[in-house]
Amino acid sequence: MIASRSSFEPRSSEPLPNSKRVYVTGQRHPSVRVGLREVQLGAAISLDGKPEPNEPVRLYDCSGPWGDPDFRGAVEQGLPPLRRDWILGRGDVEISETNAGAPRGSAGNPAATAIPPTLRRRPLRAKPGRAVTQLYYARQGIITPEMEYIAIRENLGRDQAGARRDGNGQRDLGGESFGASIPGHITPEFVRDEVARGRAIIPANINHPESEPMIIGRNFLVKINANIGNSAVASSIEEEVEKMRWATKWGADTVMDLSTGKSIHETREWILRNSPVPIGTVPIYQALEKVGGKAEELTWESYRDTLIEQCEQGVDYFTVHAGVLLRYVPLTARRVTGIVSRGGSIMAKWCLAHHCESFLYTHFREICEIMRAYDVSFSLGDGLRPGSIADANDEAQFAELRTQGELTKIAWEMDCQVMNEGPGHIPMHLIKENMDKQLDWCGEAPFYTLGPLTTDIAPGYDHITSAIGAAMIGWYGCAMLCYVTPKEHLGLPTKKDVKDGVIAYKIAAHAADLAKGHPSARHRDDALSKARFEFRWEDQFNLSLDPETAREFHDETLPQETAKTAHFCSMCGPHFCSMKITEEVRKYAAQQGIAEEQALQAGMEDKAREFAQKGGEIYSKA
Amino acid sequence: MIASRSSFEPRSSEPLPNSKRVYVTGQRHPSVRVGLREVQLGAAISLDGKPEPNEPVRLYDCSGPWGDPDFRGAVEQGLPPLRRDWILGRGDVEISETNAGAPRGSAGNPAATAIPPTLRRRPLRAKPGRAVTQLYYARQGIITPEMEYIAIRENLGRDQAGARRDGNGQRDLGGESFGASIPGHITPEFVRDEVARGRAIIPANINHPESEPMIIGRNFLVKINANIGNSAVASSIEEEVEKMRWATKWGADTVMDLSTGKSIHETREWILRNSPVPIGTVPIYQALEKVGGKAEELTWESYRDTLIEQCEQGVDYFTVHAGVLLRYVPLTARRVTGIVSRGGSIMAKWCLAHHCESFLYTHFREICEIMRAYDVSFSLGDGLRPGSIADANDEAQFAELRTQGELTKIAWEMDCQVMNEGPGHIPMHLIKENMDKQLDWCGEAPFYTLGPLTTDIAPGYDHITSAIGAAMIGWYGCAMLCYVTPKEHLGLPTKKDVKDGVIAYKIAAHAADLAKGHPSARHRDDALSKARFEFRWEDQFNLSLDPETAREFHDETLPQETAKTAHFCSMCGPHFCSMKITEEVRKYAAQQGIAEEQALQAGMEDKAREFAQKGGEIYSKA
Repeated sequence: MIASRSSFEPRSSEPLPNSKRVYVTGQRHPSVRVGLREVQLGAAISLDGKPEPNEPVRLYDCSGPWGDPDFRGAVEQGLPPLRRDWILGRGDVEISETNAGAPRGSAGNPAATAIPPTLRRRPLRAKPGRAVTQLYYARQGIITPEMEYIAIRENLGRDQAGARRDGNGQRDLGGESFGASIPGHITPEFVRDEVARGRAIIPANINHPESEPMIIGRNFLVKINANIGNSAVASSIEEEVEKMRWATKWGADTVMDLSTGKSIHETREWILRNSPVPIGTVPIYQALEKVGGKAEELTWESYRDTLIEQCEQGVDYFTVHAGVLLRYVPLTARRVTGIVSRGGSIMAKWCLAHHCESFLYTHFREICEIMRAYDVSFSLGDGLRPGSIADANDEAQFAELRTQGELTKIAWEMDCQVMNEGPGHIPMHLIKENMDKQLDWCGEAPFYTLGPLTTDIAPGYDHITSAIGAAMIGWYGCAMLCYVTPKEHLGLPTKKDVKDGVIAYKIAAHAADLAKGHPSARHRDDALSKARFEFRWEDQFNLSLDPETAREFHDETLPQETAKTAHFCSMCGPHFCSMKITEEVRKYAAQQGIAEEQALQAGMEDKAREFAQKGGEIYSKA
Repeated sequence: MIASRSSFEPRSSEPLPNSKRVYVTGQRHPSVRVGLREVQLGAAISLDGKPEPNEPVRLYDCSGPWGDPDFRGAVEQGLPPLRRDWILGRGDVEISETNAGAPRGSAGNPAATAIPPTLRRRPLRAKPGRAVTQLYYARQGIITPEMEYIAIRENLGRDQAGARRDGNGQRDLGGESFGASIPGHITPEFVRDEVARGRAIIPANINHPESEPMIIGRNFLVKINANIGNSAVASSIEEEVEKMRWATKWGADTVMDLSTGKSIHETREWILRNSPVPIGTVPIYQALEKVGGKAEELTWESYRDTLIEQCEQGVDYFTVHAGVLLRYVPLTARRVTGIVSRGGSIMAKWCLAHHCESFLYTHFREICEIMRAYDVSFSLGDGLRPGSIADANDEAQFAELRTQGELTKIAWEMDCQVMNEGPGHIPMHLIKENMDKQLDWCGEAPFYTLGPLTTDIAPGYDHITSAIGAAMIGWYGCAMLCYVTPKEHLGLPTKKDVKDGVIAYKIAAHAADLAKGHPSARHRDDALSKARFEFRWEDQFNLSLDPETAREFHDETLPQETAKTAHFCSMCGPHFCSMKITEEVRKYAAQQGIAEEQALQAGMEDKAREFAQKGGEIYSKA
């Protein structure tokens, strides 16, 4: 098994089949060009043998320039700084005098040398006293290019492509959004309004101009995050950059770099310069490296320096475990699995050692001042999240959530964008309580949850135990789902694990979008199902989340090329194919004069009801 | 990938690690011996270095004698007829005069020769006019050995092993069972009562005495079914028998043999004689083979002969698509994916061709008479289930469900056991309506659903799209979940796919049991989480649904034997291990006099609230 895995090394640069990159241009800001993936489809063959063309389907695409076959770039150069002119055009930033890209406060680190000159950028920061956050602009009534970009992106070009075509005459399945306010069409003004209210964030550090604007909020498409990162035990910079590209190819909307090993600064620099999606980190990990791993030796000063270092590099959101208070720590002592968050346990240890509240809490406003000068969003950590079903929704967890709510409001006062982290292990019947409390206590700030895992008994399959919980909490209103790979609890994810985790979470997020009744969601399902029903095998593969695996699985049983145009498949063979039989039913019905249109237009449904009343009696044996 | 798959050929006979088979004996019926798998655990090491033993954990086991290392059997002999004496002891059956195991009504079939004499049994049937169903006995107030067996099995030997030990002092997480009536302890009387009310079934053909009694009903543990079966295109008898053993090893509670190729009779015979779990079939598949695949040539007589043939072989439940009525067929014409059930499309074609109701519907009472003479349970098919999100919960689907309800009541009149089949593709927000309508219209008969798949866009991953829906509908009250493998819509499942499907569904079923608050469910989660927290790696592996994969994943990153006793793991390395830090937090807390017991017993929780009130103010910058 290990052998087959290490031989599994596809590159993220292989394009997805039958797809092209299309760009939709902004109206308000003509410099806005939103890339979408457009899947070309074959024609259907109607009952009378006439080909009926199918319009291409446009899909949200997280791969950025890497997903554009015309893009000629290299990781040593980094991506083009898409947003740089927008950022400079606002006139509220200045070029920092610090040594570009240099790690701070880590004297012994031989660092910077591993970053080639082609990747170095002079960092920007806000002019003194200014907030350069999307929240600040939104509150001023300004619709930034980022906001227009997002509006186009969230609509999947539905205007432009005249989508919902396939939806003509189809049943409306409604949706249950539990009080969310999802409009039929996303406007730039709606984006601005949601950001201004704090109900959505646009993670967009001014030092990460390579990232394509995206939004996290419950009135938008549900997003997913993929964690990557080397550890003291294994993996290299090159691998991590490739994992980032790999994760975004399959649909990661943001990536967290959780590296803890050496070269932590350089790994991050490579990732940021090449990432088309926002990058999140947990700065306390690096701060801890600087003090040799001794939690009790952490200081506000070294943490602050680490924050600034990462702000200058371009990290888009920071997990900050400021809600772990001294008095909450004893609440975890009787838990089955104590404190399982790394950041949470580091801070708990610090609090106990010093017997006072952590510097994250006591210096929270200073942290806000730093973050708003670069537009780094808060991801307020859930250091006391439950690590087992037994500990779900306990007092420690909810005590911290209340504090997250207090901190959210302070960050908002300071014009900082905020989301809140949540869950872990939660049985299904306790999931909704998490969402409800978070909405209530945290003022509808976006919720960002790990899973939740709905049972503890399946290590090796926790992408599945957690995709169940993730789909549900996404439906209930969670804005971003942090993926879990099959290696969770067991080891470091390989590329295959990263992909498995991303796909499981794309499923969860999309299932949530469907259930909420998001108007951009159902089009893809309908197009794929129509392809399936019409035996357009290639289209079915290409519209799927993972065209390669779909094709490979098909070919395992029926490898012949002809089988991909066959009007049956390997599951049942030609005689038993229900889809083939349905075709025959339709033809038969048509011959018998029970034409489809006729049947429905002549009110067959009413007739059926009439028959049901008359013929309700079941045949009785003579 | 194909290469690595075909090299993946573990045998079902390899025992699971650190497990032994234990038997619990009946009190009412001393011949009842219920096998459970008992996992042995290592000791925990307390803070002061003292070993604290952990009691073994007893688990539900579907593998039958094959899972008992002391069993010396061979597939050419079949399993011992566990229930034969119970069946004969009731005095209501006679030995049939028909040619044992012979296929009926398929003149051209060279069949019976492939069944060795060691597997042949003389079929039993009820004495004239008698019903030999568990429902009939239950209504007479009789507690059969099967019922006592089930009571012990559902409790997982909790009485005997003094379980809930680990639950001492732990938080009660409650549960939301949506009106189910799950008792704290299952008694034989409760089993009888639920069967008598039709709320649960015990699929137990008198000609399948090899099967171990199990129950399907919403007040019991949620069950899963695995489909196997060769097709015209691929696979052999030997493979199918091995797939059955493989599926039950990983936890399939029932297996459906959906074979459609040649040797359909022989394949089934081999499977039945070797299966410790109930076997289901869709008899119309074989009937169709007999008429050369031409649906319109199906007749009541040949179908009836097929039923009797399969009753005599020992099939435990039949999918019967009697609810597909002529007037419902046009309701599917405008669907995106028409009729996707094979049985449904066969019957629809027949109805249209003859322009009348099917023989399944018009001869329903005769079918009941046949089935009650062998105690074959009905699984009333959902021939019009939706094959895409677009078709979910439509009029065709619910029209058939109403008819399933009518037929359920007729079957009950005739003393037949019944469950109802449901779903297919359903978005999350429409799942509960299925469960609610089924409970209402079908008089609380057990519901048995395929998935549902919560999105159409992930062929290759439909075990995941459907595990999400399965977990939810299981929580809402569905009694048995029909698995979906990763090959769904694409090809025939390999052994790896069967296992992936079974594990995904064990996760869904267990997550549902936890959410319902089933008293037998949480013990395993707690034991595994405790092992995880105490770095008992081997115990964590062995308590998981798939010990082999858990171990393999762990060893991929840290293959050394010593890593399995290490108090950290590959994810974070020694400095960042949150569990290790929590250990230190506990030690630290203990040293500081904030001992766990003390903290809680001295009302730390109240103190924490007090602090929260006093210290609610966040530090403000000077």
